[in-house]
Amino acid sequence: MLNFNYSIPTRILFGEGKIELLGKEIKKYGSRVLLAYGGGSIKKNGIYQNVVKILKENDIPFFELSGIEPNPRVESVIEGVKICRENNIDFILAVGGGSTIDCCKAVGAAYYYDGNPWDLVIGKAKIEKVLPIGCILTLAATGSEMDAGGVITNMETNQKYGVGHPDMSPKFSILDPTYTYTVSPYQTAAGVADIMSHIFESYFSKVKGAYLQDRLAEGLLKTCIHYGRIAIDEPENYEARANLMWASSLAINGLLAYGKDSIWSVHPLEHELSAYYDITHGVGLAILTPHWMEHVLDETTLYKFVEYGINVWNIEREKSDMEIAKESIEKTRDFFISLGIPMTLREVGIGEEKIETMAKAVIEYKGGKVGNFKPLDYEDVLDIYRKAL
Amino acid sequence: MLNFNYSIPTRILFGEGKIELLGKEIKKYGSRVLLAYGGGSIKKNGIYQNVVKILKENDIPFFELSGIEPNPRVESVIEGVKICRENNIDFILAVGGGSTIDCCKAVGAAYYYDGNPWDLVIGKAKIEKVLPIGCILTLAATGSEMDAGGVITNMETNQKYGVGHPDMSPKFSILDPTYTYTVSPYQTAAGVADIMSHIFESYFSKVKGAYLQDRLAEGLLKTCIHYGRIAIDEPENYEARANLMWASSLAINGLLAYGKDSIWSVHPLEHELSAYYDITHGVGLAILTPHWMEHVLDETTLYKFVEYGINVWNIEREKSDMEIAKESIEKTRDFFISLGIPMTLREVGIGEEKIETMAKAVIEYKGGKVGNFKPLDYEDVLDIYRKAL
Repeated sequence: MLNFNYSIPTRILFGEGKIELLGKEIKKYGSRVLLAYGGGSIKKNGIYQNVVKILKENDIPFFELSGIEPNPRVESVIEGVKICRENNIDFILAVGGGSTIDCCKAVGAAYYYDGNPWDLVIGKAKIEKVLPIGCILTLAATGSEMDAGGVITNMETNQKYGVGHPDMSPKFSILDPTYTYTVSPYQTAAGVADIMSHIFESYFSKVKGAYLQDRLAEGLLKTCIHYGRIAIDEPENYEARANLMWASSLAINGLLAYGKDSIWSVHPLEHELSAYYDITHGVGLAILTPHWMEHVLDETTLYKFVEYGINVWNIEREKSDMEIAKESIEKTRDFFISLGIPMTLREVGIGEEKIETMAKAVIEYKGGKVGNFKPLDYEDVLDIYRKAL
Repeated sequence: MLNFNYSIPTRILFGEGKIELLGKEIKKYGSRVLLAYGGGSIKKNGIYQNVVKILKENDIPFFELSGIEPNPRVESVIEGVKICRENNIDFILAVGGGSTIDCCKAVGAAYYYDGNPWDLVIGKAKIEKVLPIGCILTLAATGSEMDAGGVITNMETNQKYGVGHPDMSPKFSILDPTYTYTVSPYQTAAGVADIMSHIFESYFSKVKGAYLQDRLAEGLLKTCIHYGRIAIDEPENYEARANLMWASSLAINGLLAYGKDSIWSVHPLEHELSAYYDITHGVGLAILTPHWMEHVLDETTLYKFVEYGINVWNIEREKSDMEIAKESIEKTRDFFISLGIPMTLREVGIGEEKIETMAKAVIEYKGGKVGNFKPLDYEDVLDIYRKAL
């Protein structure tokens, strides 16, 4: 187990009806609010109306940033900063899924930076300070509600990169599982794939002796596997929505990663797909994951797949290690298929045209190699993309 | 899954050498330190000398409270408060295991209360404020390094009660696994039993749908089972000490309990043993646990023991539910035996004399029933004590 400094400061207000604490929570941190959301689904399911009502009841002035994209773009960040500056905003309330929250984190950081916010994403400038952020989560997927990072896309340059700072951790996040009842089967499935991918990124690691972390990771994976299909079949199953929602936060808030040195593999590969084709992030991850697993499975990584197969998928120990490993990958693929996720790139509109460009881009961004479980070079990335076509 | 408000504010500085951050951390919160510790083992293994050196290098004045008992007594709390007041202390540094940390938490609270600190323990007075506390952990057991409570003993009245307040959460805790290398086999075993008992207290619950929490609990239990004997056989096995140390914190910091409504059962029963006989807490827990399990096993609780048997002990699913349940309890008992823990009350000097008094006391303290997995009345408690003799 590696050394680590653990700090997860976000307060989580979990459960049906927790919205009642919203006014009190906001007042701890600010008095003028940027109310940020996406395409407007929160107006259909009434969450927006409820939030507005609470803000008004609490005499909290608010200004809106709407239309944040599924892969949030730097233009939305720029727009958000403008609204904040013009209205002396001192608190950002993100109502939505990871995209909305990620955008708000970037707005909070860019508020204190005079140049183009994109500079902060590509590391040209350093984040010094971040406006306080609170979240009302409406999609179990990215874990952005409890972590200190976000991902921003620049469609002009076809770049989709992560950006992080400790102060980006939300002050509080309201997790009401009933707010995810209206999430479509497709987005529910993509969310489950995203949560599982976050767990895989830290689970598949060569760090020795992080036994505890791996057992916790397996517990979260089992939770996703147990409830994934249930949430699709019974969208108003509170238990399923609650378990998935809490899993989304714990998968990426640091709990599984502290003590390991995981450099992610599949996420950077997927970010290129989203940056060039604007596809649903979780779907891209589900498509790539089994191919990535097959690509990195060799004698040096075999033991980890055996652990995974036995502990997560209950594969009989009596089988040979390689059989267990391969079966574990098949079960992973079958699970994503069972959720109804399209499992080829072509099905989501991605052909051969740009795979070399994307492979080059990810290698360049990562400075030569992607990930550290089994570091991937250009040919590796290309191979994974090709097999996923 | 029940609603919950999650807040775990303690920063954990984990790993060999993390003591180097001590000066910097203290200075965030205070300038005059109460340095508190127990029987002096930290002077034998050099931790004391190192801490003193760091405090001096950082020009931080400190005043000592030493000799804190294994079941910390209210007299030590009174003494600590006196030192704090006489020397304008604004930060408490606990160096030791749970007893030292618990005592410091009570000192921190009693500092702001003019009456007898025992009033705060028995609820006669309310905790309003707590001096900031930091910990250097030297024993993996109670989890006090990352939670908001403590347990204080009054040997005059034979009372040992818990006391808690959100501000009792340490600001930071330094967890260096090498600091537990000198912990004796007996204390290591008792620590493992304590950690496992904390997990059991929230795991064995009738709350429905806290699937995720239970899978995490199982992961932590497996960690204790995997490393318990290793840490005894190889006291300087870093991996074993690290996993147990981190398990001790996560077992009771809230992670497993949020979303459940566990009212503890075995801990209150053990507290009477310690209050009357001053025995090692973890040993008392290990003695009582299998008897408690046997006592509460019935048709309404069977499913939970089946889950436990299959998921934690890998018992074959083909067996009957009752077989699995009983085998899971046997395996629990055998595991404690394998750690070298005496498994009868008589072996630790407790005979029949006071068991009725203790049973009465715990029932009275708990207002009639103990625990809520299967609530225990006077006869139940007596039966468990008798069988444990």
